[in-house]
Amino acid sequence: MRPSGRAPDEIRPVSLETGVNKYAEGSCLVRFGDTHVLCAATVEDRVPPFLRNSGRGWVTAEYGMLPRATDTRTDREAARGKQSGRTLEIQRLIGRSFRAITDLTGLGERQVRVDCDVLQADGGTRTASITGGYVALHLAFDYLARHRLIESVPLTDKVAAISCGIYQGAGVADLDYAEDSNAATDANFVLTGKGGIVEIQATAEQDPFQPDEFNTMLALAMSATERLFTLQQSTVDTAIAARDAAAA
Amino acid sequence: MRPSGRAPDEIRPVSLETGVNKYAEGSCLVRFGDTHVLCAATVEDRVPPFLRNSGRGWVTAEYGMLPRATDTRTDREAARGKQSGRTLEIQRLIGRSFRAITDLTGLGERQVRVDCDVLQADGGTRTASITGGYVALHLAFDYLARHRLIESVPLTDKVAAISCGIYQGAGVADLDYAEDSNAATDANFVLTGKGGIVEIQATAEQDPFQPDEFNTMLALAMSATERLFTLQQSTVDTAIAARDAAAA
Amino acid sequence: MRPSGRAPDEIRPVSLETGVNKYAEGSCLVRFGDTHVLCAATVEDRVPPFLRNSGRGWVTAEYGMLPRATDTRTDREAARGKQSGRTLEIQRLIGRSFRAITDLTGLGERQVRVDCDVLQADGGTRTASITGGYVALHLAFDYLARHRLIESVPLTDKVAAISCGIYQGAGVADLDYAEDSNAATDANFVLTGKGGIVEIQATAEQDPFQPDEFNTMLALAMSATERLFTLQQSTVDTAIAARDAAAA
Amino acid sequence: MRPSGRAPDEIRPVSLETGVNKYAEGSCLVRFGDTHVLCAATVEDRVPPFLRNSGRGWVTAEYGMLPRATDTRTDREAARGKQSGRTLEIQRLIGRSFRAITDLTGLGERQVRVDCDVLQADGGTRTASITGGYVALHLAFDYLARHRLIESVPLTDKVAAISCGIYQGAGVADLDYAEDSNAATDANFVLTGKGGIVEIQATAEQDPFQPDEFNTMLALAMSATERLFTLQQSTVDTAIAARDAAAA
Amino acid sequence: MRPSGRAPDEIRPVSLETGVNKYAEGSCLVRFGDTHVLCAATVEDRVPPFLRNSGRGWVTAEYGMLPRATDTRTDREAARGKQSGRTLEIQRLIGRSFRAITDLTGLGERQVRVDCDVLQADGGTRTASITGGYVALHLAFDYLARHRLIESVPLTDKVAAISCGIYQGAGVADLDYAEDSNAATDANFVLTGKGGIVEIQATAEQDPFQPDEFNTMLALAMSATERLFTLQQSTVDTAIAARDAAAA
Amino acid sequence: MRPSGRAPDEIRPVSLETGVNKYAEGSCLVRFGDTHVLCAATVEDRVPPFLRNSGRGWVTAEYGMLPRATDTRTDREAARGKQSGRTLEIQRLIGRSFRAITDLTGLGERQVRVDCDVLQADGGTRTASITGGYVALHLAFDYLARHRLIESVPLTDKVAAISCGIYQGAGVADLDYAEDSNAATDANFVLTGKGGIVEIQATAEQDPFQPDEFNTMLALAMSATERLFTLQQSTVDTAIAARDAAAA
Repeated sequence: MRPSGRAPDEIRPVSLETGVNKYAEGSCLVRFGDTHVLCAATVEDRVPPFLRNSGRGWVTAEYGMLPRATDTRTDREAARGKQSGRTLEIQRLIGRSFRAITDLTGLGERQVRVDCDVLQADGGTRTASITGGYVALHLAFDYLARHRLIESVPLTDKVAAISCGIYQGAGVADLDYAEDSNAATDANFVLTGKGGIVEIQATAEQDPFQPDEFNTMLALAMSATERLFTLQQSTVDTAIAARDAAAA
Repeated sequence: MRPSGRAPDEIRPVSLETGVNKYAEGSCLVRFGDTHVLCAATVEDRVPPFLRNSGRGWVTAEYGMLPRATDTRTDREAARGKQSGRTLEIQRLIGRSFRAITDLTGLGERQVRVDCDVLQADGGTRTASITGGYVALHLAFDYLARHRLIESVPLTDKVAAISCGIYQGAGVADLDYAEDSNAATDANFVLTGKGGIVEIQATAEQDPFQPDEFNTMLALAMSATERLFTLQQSTVDTAIAARDAAAA
Repeated sequence: MRPSGRAPDEIRPVSLETGVNKYAEGSCLVRFGDTHVLCAATVEDRVPPFLRNSGRGWVTAEYGMLPRATDTRTDREAARGKQSGRTLEIQRLIGRSFRAITDLTGLGERQVRVDCDVLQADGGTRTASITGGYVALHLAFDYLARHRLIESVPLTDKVAAISCGIYQGAGVADLDYAEDSNAATDANFVLTGKGGIVEIQATAEQDPFQPDEFNTMLALAMSATERLFTLQQSTVDTAIAARDAAAA
Repeated sequence: MRPSGRAPDEIRPVSLETGVNKYAEGSCLVRFGDTHVLCAATVEDRVPPFLRNSGRGWVTAEYGMLPRATDTRTDREAARGKQSGRTLEIQRLIGRSFRAITDLTGLGERQVRVDCDVLQADGGTRTASITGGYVALHLAFDYLARHRLIESVPLTDKVAAISCGIYQGAGVADLDYAEDSNAATDANFVLTGKGGIVEIQATAEQDPFQPDEFNTMLALAMSATERLFTLQQSTVDTAIAARDAAAA
Repeated sequence: MRPSGRAPDEIRPVSLETGVNKYAEGSCLVRFGDTHVLCAATVEDRVPPFLRNSGRGWVTAEYGMLPRATDTRTDREAARGKQSGRTLEIQRLIGRSFRAITDLTGLGERQVRVDCDVLQADGGTRTASITGGYVALHLAFDYLARHRLIESVPLTDKVAAISCGIYQGAGVADLDYAEDSNAATDANFVLTGKGGIVEIQATAEQDPFQPDEFNTMLALAMSATERLFTLQQSTVDTAIAARDAAAA
Repeated sequence: MRPSGRAPDEIRPVSLETGVNKYAEGSCLVRFGDTHVLCAATVEDRVPPFLRNSGRGWVTAEYGMLPRATDTRTDREAARGKQSGRTLEIQRLIGRSFRAITDLTGLGERQVRVDCDVLQADGGTRTASITGGYVALHLAFDYLARHRLIESVPLTDKVAAISCGIYQGAGVADLDYAEDSNAATDANFVLTGKGGIVEIQATAEQDPFQPDEFNTMLALAMSATERLFTLQQSTVDTAIAARDAAAA
């Protein structure tokens, strides 16, 4: 029995709300239950030094948590003077996930930076950031295409993510904090709309896990992201239709 | 004529939304037009070293802006490794404002920390932080009193803030970013419900200003904060009534 | 009765000593009683990035305190690895004050940086820095004009500053440390020779203050700075005459 | 065809050399071909704050690379003033791997810290660190047991790690730098002697990968670590026998 | 011929001025020609951790330069966020020099910290800091003895320092900046009143130097410090007599 | 009687092993007894800003210690976020030593950086770094000459270093840690093959020392470095012969 009463393959109520930042070229407030992340995509004219004069672009991400996003207040990283290892690890993962489904040559020599700021955290903030950040990224690409800075949206696929775990001996999808802190194993899956795997991070929190447990979690993740891809698609479609209408 | 079309003494639409953070002892999302600040008050059992064994408490504040809160993205302070002088100056101001209306002895040897994080900025983020942060602080005090950790809410007054300026030769209240960046003078007033002044920060952005211009701005600020105090009161009353109802 | 025995409108003995640094283009050791600040103005050929190719110059300031400038030794900021919020706030104020009376176009695309280092502190270090730093700045401008790098001294006015307060219910001018740490209200005024206001920073240290108390402090500040402008003028005149004589 | 001419399941020559640091309670210089990592385990009497008075111990790791461990010199992290995200991510992984096979209660309230410093890098430094660090850790536990500070070596299993990838369409084990920088997919597996999985980190460097490709890599990893466990066992046995002989 | 026209063994005019800081337990403004260093000694009740409960005290030093102490302005170390290697090296030297002539047991479990801040630099700032800092230190010890916190001044000797060099083939004493930047060899000698050597730092700036050149420099240093010891003695005597008179 | 049983002028067994890093243009693992330092020389195409367009090159050094190089583990400088004063002082000394025997014009506008990383420390790590680093530097120069980037090896002399001390009243050469921590005086000598002195750093650890004690230490150092120069020469000759053979 899960603390939340959810079925093993049941994910929390998910919502994707666009247009939440009046300045960003693309933005999305993603909610997985009580986990809320504000994703804002910014188009920049510069690329990192190693790409200068390459004709190719870059997509990167930054991640942060408001100090009281968590049950017990966490020190502000800006005040502490450095980002934690956890923060750096998460933002590197998010950036890789977006680059895996972006045609960097089609993007041209510019960078899109996706800021993922956690307003409230109840487990699964990195996977929510990828799932919601994809929408912000897509809309930033739409902005570039709409302004004829690129020919078309340079995406080769969709990307979404979910965490699964082994909780009390059984595989469950979309861990919340109560489960995450007690699960024997926690695995984050970053998957694409076409069924490919972008990244797997699976960790035995207590005892090592077995290959068949891993396969159970992978199957749960594939099923859960199917639903996320559908929601992403309809959210993006609606937002683009609204932009079309506003421009008309 | 103001860029926004507002009358000289007309402030932007203001809203104060409580209960926006499920963990914080008090929280408030304050909106002055397109300026949105999430305020979360945290009760801590420790006080700063200089107050240990004094029997007195402390109220402090931290301030931050999401990178894309602004029209042009600002570097993340956590990634840069330090808070800017502007950030430190603002959070010191917010903290002083709250302490000026708090009975620190009545609070007892604990600290309330109010995090003010700007989700979207269109001028006046520091004054919005004070105005909305007051609500979060009041509710955190209510939390302490409700749990019988203190006898009563240790507030001696209310506090709210507003910026006024001299724009095209005339005094105006509640500058937005378009005005702020063009005003000859920008003054922030932190005032109390009983008509006292907690803090004045007035700066000639271009030419020096005259005493009578200052007095015009002060009068506008007093009028504007009257309306803010009324809104704060009703917001707090409603939130407390809801807590009473939930506890019943 | 003030701790120092001074009359309410009596400022401490003030001296401005020029030529105290053999390298600086302008320098001044300012003393307000036991508060001693060494101000040194440096001409630099570069401007900050946002002014490149603008034809305009910049004036900025840095502020520091020797560790034992204070009664109890303060940690060295260089050893701690960062400047405090107080330091950053003060040096931003000093810089703004100088820019308010400088014709930045007349200065041309160069920067003058005024270092204000407190050798001994007894209250009022930021206002002393502005008052003495003005002399160093004026002499650095004279250096530029004398070497025909600019046509004339690009100053539109003089600037001086003083702190006033409400001490035991009465307004007093030029707080020293004993008063500052006990005053109910502390207000810093940055004023110009022509009677304009550049900056006001007024803070209720304990209880909020009233508009009429504010007006009393403003009047005291205007009177005090009158005397400072006279002293600045004669100091600058003497120093320039000495330079003329040396060059002859 | 692999650049090194190795068969797909062929790992590089591996050696584990103990006793390479005369001070450390356990040490091991691990070599996977041209990748050389010096691992030194230090016993400390303190535990992190969250474990104080818990009766439980902790195992942690730090990771570093000498500046010229790489083909092109890398800036020294101590000189740059911070550890990179990559470094933090790796040392967190190493620490988790060791804790997964340690009985932290059996260790008692002390910490073992394993420093993994890369002298020369040719791919697979994190997996070499885990494989060699295990030997250093085991010997540090032996040191504690030998000095009767703990009853027995508090290990519940062995741990070793290997990276596998998809190179030119085929699964290969133990990527060296030439392969790693060209592989379509790179996966690090941390496995235990009893066949459990401690951690999987699989990343699509270019295109997403498929579940069957993942299974191929997992099988290669299981086979490779079998050989590593055998080598670890004989290395530890020999080192312990030498300590027995020296003590006799 | 030296740039200054001085004879080879002629040191610059030296002055030691005490009582220059109204708060410090001992202070001295030392001038070697145009090199001016403000030395302030602070008594602290704490010792570094490695001396706790040892019954012994500690003497340490910190060194800094005002940004415009030099001909070309130097960046402020507090703004840069760290002390340079040169600064750290100098303050370690100063601290060692003072500890070599202090009876740390006689001092008891407290620390004296000597801040040496260079107001103007024309070569020889580290040796001036030692020479002047000794006076500040002696007076801080006198303060402790006078207040009966220690029985007597815990000094076993005097200490002074001078730089010598090989300039255009000949040995010279007390290098100023013009010589220092052109000398073939620069050697700093820290010597005691009884003829002992505390520290030698001799560096070939261009070509290696010979043992006989070294001996020439050592002889010049011994002669120069003789004069410094006499001046230190009379300065301390006068200051102590003044304190006696004030106390009477 | 020395703790190691060595004669007063007897240095520890010294070995210089080249080719220990497959990437570096020159490398040498130097051992003085239990002190082991890995020296790697890197050729870089850039020079520091002050040498740009000067036609001259630069040689610099960086120094580090692995955390468990010492008996008690030392915090990792990269994790602490800054290099200690000791580290900065040592690497400045090493760099100066190499520049004193290099023809920087002959090197051309490029930089050689010598990383000296201490794998195990038993006293004398800075002098070992200079002695072994010379070999790495020579081989990096040979690399440049061999690839016809420079005409010939731009060395004007050899350089080696040794520490001497006064231990129990007698002069001894090549202090190990047991002696170093108990010696009354510790002196580091950097000497050249032609008998010149590059640097002397002599420090009284307890009581001041006398000129004749200094002369004893200098004589011991000259004798010891003679043997080091012979070993350096044969090591370099052998390594160059091996390169010739490999190229043939």
